[in-house]
Amino acid sequence: MYQLDELLTLLERKIKTLELPKTPNLLYDPISYTLNASGKRIRPLMLLLAANMYDDRIDEALNAALAIEIFHNFTLLHDDIMDNAPVRRGRPSVYARWNSNVAILSGDAMTILAYRQLAECRPDKLSVLLGEFNKLAIGVCEGQQYDMDYETRDDVSINDYIGMITLKTSVLIAGALKMGAIIGNAPRTDCDRLYEFGLRLGIAFQIQDDMLDLYGNQNFGKPIGGDIVSGKKSFLHLKAMEKADADGRRRLTELLRDSALPDREKIAKMRVLYDHYDVKAEAAVSINRYFGEAMEILETVDLPDSRKTEMKALSLQLLNRDK
Amino acid sequence: MYQLDELLTLLERKIKTLELPKTPNLLYDPISYTLNASGKRIRPLMLLLAANMYDDRIDEALNAALAIEIFHNFTLLHDDIMDNAPVRRGRPSVYARWNSNVAILSGDAMTILAYRQLAECRPDKLSVLLGEFNKLAIGVCEGQQYDMDYETRDDVSINDYIGMITLKTSVLIAGALKMGAIIGNAPRTDCDRLYEFGLRLGIAFQIQDDMLDLYGNQNFGKPIGGDIVSGKKSFLHLKAMEKADADGRRRLTELLRDSALPDREKIAKMRVLYDHYDVKAEAAVSINRYFGEAMEILETVDLPDSRKTEMKALSLQLLNRDK
Repeated sequence: MYQLDELLTLLERKIKTLELPKTPNLLYDPISYTLNASGKRIRPLMLLLAANMYDDRIDEALNAALAIEIFHNFTLLHDDIMDNAPVRRGRPSVYARWNSNVAILSGDAMTILAYRQLAECRPDKLSVLLGEFNKLAIGVCEGQQYDMDYETRDDVSINDYIGMITLKTSVLIAGALKMGAIIGNAPRTDCDRLYEFGLRLGIAFQIQDDMLDLYGNQNFGKPIGGDIVSGKKSFLHLKAMEKADADGRRRLTELLRDSALPDREKIAKMRVLYDHYDVKAEAAVSINRYFGEAMEILETVDLPDSRKTEMKALSLQLLNRDK
Repeated sequence: MYQLDELLTLLERKIKTLELPKTPNLLYDPISYTLNASGKRIRPLMLLLAANMYDDRIDEALNAALAIEIFHNFTLLHDDIMDNAPVRRGRPSVYARWNSNVAILSGDAMTILAYRQLAECRPDKLSVLLGEFNKLAIGVCEGQQYDMDYETRDDVSINDYIGMITLKTSVLIAGALKMGAIIGNAPRTDCDRLYEFGLRLGIAFQIQDDMLDLYGNQNFGKPIGGDIVSGKKSFLHLKAMEKADADGRRRLTELLRDSALPDREKIAKMRVLYDHYDVKAEAAVSINRYFGEAMEILETVDLPDSRKTEMKALSLQLLNRDK
């Protein structure tokens, strides 16, 4: 079995083999720009690990892993347009660096490149892998739409939110894991267990992402408090709404909607409210719960512990618990 | 063999079987809106006909045909945003009816739905069909990028233009034909011939589209002179540039760039110039040439004439020569 850093090296090498045409450069330059950004490659690593748990060779899995990474980066390109997010990984996002049309079309091309990479998988597995890939891909689109819908709705519950992030974040991680397991010829029950493991892990990851958006360090390449500025119904906000009385809910809602207030002031005021409802601790509780459920499911996977070590390590890394 | 109108009926029935989820409705409503618009279904019909030329059954081909139709409609959704085209088939385009974000995300979902439909094809053909589909899909993206690039370039030649429309328009028609032939188990040489036939036919079609943009009737669902208003380097414009002397080229270029002039006046003035260079007749010559080449290639396809009748009829219909 490979270790995590070896898998990452193999993956980065695989990404380098992706020979993009030079022209039209406004189509391909943004794709190189995006794929060469220092992403953490969590999703393709999940796929490689799942395959490697069952099969010592991972050549076949590298194609699918690259497909997943290209697809994930495509979603960032288009999401950044829709979310008006001019910064990504500490650099201008594609629509900010070039323009929206460039980001739309390069993103479209990336979707196709993802499928082209997937098509490199063995023909006898292709049909089932394509099915899983399509399923996660349409899920991500649905999740993004719900995310945008929720920005203008005032009756979003924590349950709605969990459903939304399951689609937007978890199905990609879960689907990547299942695809890896399929490529590694895992038993069908294990494929399904790894999918369920991925769903829980993805939810824990997204709640943490929401938490770090306000309470994290500024060095994640995104400005602090972005969710508040853009009026997102984040986990923090929904948890505060859940705990607040009618008066508190009105204040939370009015403040989130207030677009006249300078960003800094809005973030500071909201933080006072969130702290009042202790939502940071609430987030930690939920993260622990979903992470714990994920680990329990991983325990049931029919393999010796020694073959699960790297997957546990990557899961901890995903939750930023490795340092 | 089926007749054209029978194939169209089967195709429309197949489109109806596409059961889209109800929610999130901002994701799926625009997709229904687009697929149910009264398009001519030329590209999927080409695929069905190519299959039917070699095989009397077309069940298998219907899946690929629907994939092609969904993909084509996706490109229209995104192109309309990029080209600022608020009207499509006589109705508001998706970004104009909803907004750009809705059009971006629904378009993304349509790409995935196209691949999902393609995945319904027989597993033993899937790998090769997916390869052809990816090839045409990336070609369309490249073509759209060149089209946008050319709007701001002043040194575009007729050759550049032919290369651009080959990607933007022809590879989709050619690829659809080849996919149909593959599904119908045509000999490999015929698959390639039909691809070449489609390339020529697509070029003739696009030049005609450019011609009708100014010289057609207004009932195509698009306003007359749109290419002039949006500053497109259409066939008409490039042919006029080719025939003009330095002074004429300057006038053509300045007028195309003039954004202060009211649309009507700009179109009328440009039309005087185009008429002076007789570009409508020049377009007719080129259309005839490419159409003739296409028909010659169709002659070489290794089938009795009786199996080519419907393909000829559809080609004539594509060039609006059937009425």
